[in-house]
Amino acid sequence: MCDAAGNATPTVLIDNDRVRVTRWHFKGRGDNTGWHRHEYDYVVVPLFDGVLDIKLAGGETVDAQMLNGVPYYRELGVEHDVRNGNDFECAFVEIELLEPRGESGAGIADLLKA
Amino acid sequence: MCDAAGNATPTVLIDNDRVRVTRWHFKGRGDNTGWHRHEYDYVVVPLFDGVLDIKLAGGETVDAQMLNGVPYYRELGVEHDVRNGNDFECAFVEIELLEPRGESGAGIADLLKA
Repeated sequence: MCDAAGNATPTVLIDNDRVRVTRWHFKGRGDNTGWHRHEYDYVVVPLFDGVLDIKLAGGETVDAQMLNGVPYYRELGVEHDVRNGNDFECAFVEIELLEPRGESGAGIADLLKA
Repeated sequence: MCDAAGNATPTVLIDNDRVRVTRWHFKGRGDNTGWHRHEYDYVVVPLFDGVLDIKLAGGETVDAQMLNGVPYYRELGVEHDVRNGNDFECAFVEIELLEPRGESGAGIADLLKA
């Protein structure tokens, strides 16, 4: 999902028809994902207590507090560069939902009935 | 997702149209989820290094080695009771995919073309 290279390390751990699960590892303060736009809805599970400095497209920076194992969900379209805001290495697990949103199950039944 | 109560503690942290994310917390050795059958495909992100003793429907027990932040994916239909196999408290995060498998995106396009 990277458009501009950062120096954090992404490792894809699961990749199938439904999800791509990537661990992002940041060695030290300031290590970053690089600028990217999320093409899929996603869940993040932080593996540390600390801060991510998230640079947004408008120039704003958000200091996002992370708690180990406390996840958050975001919809596709988010564009940012995520930086380690801590004096220690840290990592999170990102679960991207590869299937389009809201086009499954009942949606198909509705289409076929129409 | 529990059918028979265990003494591990589930906490639902995200619940929307796409995913339900639950943290399971096990205080001590032998704490368990209770018997349950997974109704959805799911990803587990362990938050510890250690062992889960997983009792399967056939009577078999599997000692599953967990590594902090190393996820695994399972399809719906799994039936088991998951127990803490460690002398310490532990937890994992479970991400259930609430939408039916393989009925989205290209699938719809194919249906409409057919």
